[in-house]
Amino acid sequence: LSSGIIEPRVLKGFRDLLPNAAISKTKMLETIKIVFDSFGYPPIETPALEYAEILLGKGSEESDKQLFRFQDQGGRDVALRFDLTVPLARFAATHAHDLGLPFRRYHIAPVWRAEKPQRGRFREFTQCDFDIIGTSSILADAEIVSIIDTVFNRLKINHKIRINHRAILNGFIKELCTSDPNKTKQTTILRAIDKLDKLGKDVVSTELMEEADLSAMQIERVFEFLALSPSNLSKTQIENKSCEQILNDALALLKGNQLAELGIEQLKYLLDATLQGAVNPENITIDLTIARGLDYYTGAVFETLATDLPDIGSICSGGRYDNLAGLYTKRQLPGVGASVGLDRTLAALEELGRIDNKASTAQVLFCILDSGTEGRIFALAQQLRTNGIATEVFPEINKLGNQLKYADKKEIGYAIIAGSDELSRNCCSIKNLRTKTQEDGISLENLSSILKNNLAKTVS
Amino acid sequence: LSSGIIEPRVLKGFRDLLPNAAISKTKMLETIKIVFDSFGYPPIETPALEYAEILLGKGSEESDKQLFRFQDQGGRDVALRFDLTVPLARFAATHAHDLGLPFRRYHIAPVWRAEKPQRGRFREFTQCDFDIIGTSSILADAEIVSIIDTVFNRLKINHKIRINHRAILNGFIKELCTSDPNKTKQTTILRAIDKLDKLGKDVVSTELMEEADLSAMQIERVFEFLALSPSNLSKTQIENKSCEQILNDALALLKGNQLAELGIEQLKYLLDATLQGAVNPENITIDLTIARGLDYYTGAVFETLATDLPDIGSICSGGRYDNLAGLYTKRQLPGVGASVGLDRTLAALEELGRIDNKASTAQVLFCILDSGTEGRIFALAQQLRTNGIATEVFPEINKLGNQLKYADKKEIGYAIIAGSDELSRNCCSIKNLRTKTQEDGISLENLSSILKNNLAKTVS
Repeated sequence: LSSGIIEPRVLKGFRDLLPNAAISKTKMLETIKIVFDSFGYPPIETPALEYAEILLGKGSEESDKQLFRFQDQGGRDVALRFDLTVPLARFAATHAHDLGLPFRRYHIAPVWRAEKPQRGRFREFTQCDFDIIGTSSILADAEIVSIIDTVFNRLKINHKIRINHRAILNGFIKELCTSDPNKTKQTTILRAIDKLDKLGKDVVSTELMEEADLSAMQIERVFEFLALSPSNLSKTQIENKSCEQILNDALALLKGNQLAELGIEQLKYLLDATLQGAVNPENITIDLTIARGLDYYTGAVFETLATDLPDIGSICSGGRYDNLAGLYTKRQLPGVGASVGLDRTLAALEELGRIDNKASTAQVLFCILDSGTEGRIFALAQQLRTNGIATEVFPEINKLGNQLKYADKKEIGYAIIAGSDELSRNCCSIKNLRTKTQEDGISLENLSSILKNNLAKTVS
Repeated sequence: LSSGIIEPRVLKGFRDLLPNAAISKTKMLETIKIVFDSFGYPPIETPALEYAEILLGKGSEESDKQLFRFQDQGGRDVALRFDLTVPLARFAATHAHDLGLPFRRYHIAPVWRAEKPQRGRFREFTQCDFDIIGTSSILADAEIVSIIDTVFNRLKINHKIRINHRAILNGFIKELCTSDPNKTKQTTILRAIDKLDKLGKDVVSTELMEEADLSAMQIERVFEFLALSPSNLSKTQIENKSCEQILNDALALLKGNQLAELGIEQLKYLLDATLQGAVNPENITIDLTIARGLDYYTGAVFETLATDLPDIGSICSGGRYDNLAGLYTKRQLPGVGASVGLDRTLAALEELGRIDNKASTAQVLFCILDSGTEGRIFALAQQLRTNGIATEVFPEINKLGNQLKYADKKEIGYAIIAGSDELSRNCCSIKNLRTKTQEDGISLENLSSILKNNLAKTVS
């Protein structure tokens, strides 16, 4: 651009949230926070910037490449956090002693990853994690499941929490590898199973044979194991089999496999704690194929499906880990937690029509027509706000048509119209901007209650 | 540290917020957001990282030094935002056309400044800005004042909004410099006046003489001007004089000074709009000495004093600007806004005892004593949550003493105690952890209502 104007642009992979998107996101987060509060999970904050050494931990080449990393003015090697788990580990190592255990917390904050931008994936996005640290009890796992269920009940998203236990999967795979107990083979099998949904039975079968060197009989056993739980995402299949039935079938197939039996027993305990009234049984299923990453989780793992929109993928995932902060402290800190996929959840809410998608938080626009009425109208508007009605005052004296056009553009449902004449008679008009109808001669005394009635009707 | 442990530390000038601090901050922000919503101000979000060119704008050496600036993986010159005003300008230049004007927004988000860390000043802190853009009407200024007032009413912080208009100050100073119309002299006078509170009359007088080259008569006139409004922070002095009186005195002193007369007229209009019921007159004063930065603001300017804690400085400041986004667009975008000083406001809330400072959001701890009761207790706890009682379940079966100690440490007020015996008789005990008293034989059916009664009593 010419004349010294700097082109107003954002970085590749970054974005602004305009009011409609930001309002929806804020409302969703408010609902989620109410649930966290109600379970006794308080918020915490950690710095966006940390020592790169801390964020990288033992790191992988991949996470290293994704870091926004630089030298600060003091020559320190620093980076923007890429998730909220590593900061939690560092936080727990620092503060566990003062906070006391068990320690619950939620953390809603942006993270940054220098990934190749793709549709729907950004280099800056908000994560929403909740965890309970310092207990190995499966009751904590059950609580996490109960929170996931409550979050999506509150958000009115039909859902199914798919639960597995890494010990069942690991136990089964180890059994396949008794003659060849090296980790690589186990990992190959796990990866192949993990791809079943995407690649289908034939491809996975070939991989198991060629790359994991399994016999035809072993491969048959793999599919027998996978068939125990309805891993296919279609809703009807999921509903076919009770959790108890799936676990009993697994126990029959894996009889004598101690690791697998331990996992099955723990899941039974988890179901016992949740299914006596805390969680609707329809919202939980067992899926023996879920692994959720190869290294991190050691116990129960969770994924959550929006049953009306199975294609968007898991909207809340997590699991149990043996040792959160081993990089930063010798203290063993086991825990369990999950993370709400905010972008996906927001997409689900929009798709399901659960979101207004409005550009204003105001329910009413108070128009301002005549000089000399400003103070009166400001006072009346403030009264409406005190009565719980979000009220915008048009910020200048302007043609009525312009003010109504403005209200329309912002999708504000009602306009209050009062010139100096009406005000001197203590009355005003209410215009419904959806129906284009107008009630005149409304007494100012009754304005709040009439608006409240109208607004209540609009919602229902 | 030995054995490959990475020392868990945060960068100099950065900090963690532990639950008690984060709960207080979150609650305060919730209250503030409710006010913004009620005035029709929606949230927006902008990226934390932007092109350095955009953040620097015409910039100063100082702001350049404060930037966390680096090259990203794509070789782009990027930086972390150091305020929310520059991003708003860039945002407005990009989206004003789509959003329509006037455009209101609030933005609550972290900013980063590589300043020398001092007590109470951090390199990462949250800003809370609200603005209305695209109107020159003083009604918009009046609305900002009304929002400031409502925010601190809601937060229950006694306050006084100190209002000035740059045209009054500029008009007065220009008059002193008619024989020498260079900007440097005007700036010198402005700076000297700005320091009155800190340095006192004698030092300022010397500066005006030696550095601004004013005559004794001129200096006398400066102090005559300054004496019009009670710039001294003591509460009683502020209350002595009505806003109208101050403006009338100013008009008498500055008769014929067109610029100053314009400013006085606009402030009268602002008071007219706010003082007929929207804002309590006790919460507003005129202070003719307030400048709020030398370049940016062009019209009304605001500062807010917590009258019970005048020493903490302004808890909310802002003003009107002629042209927000001139660096990024040829479109003239006037506006007005303010920023809540969150750290100071939080400090004020704490000082005034308006904050619980608790480490848990839970009101009740449900203890868990006997194996086999987990599912029942989970269901009962979920019922309490549905009834609006924030309820934590101790996440493992443990000694009662340990569980009560935990509740005490987290300052949870009540514990519910129910072993399998009690549960089989559909009853439980409620222990008040403050008074150390216990009610036994509470019927589970009445648990919610009894707890609610107890909690209501605790609050009052």
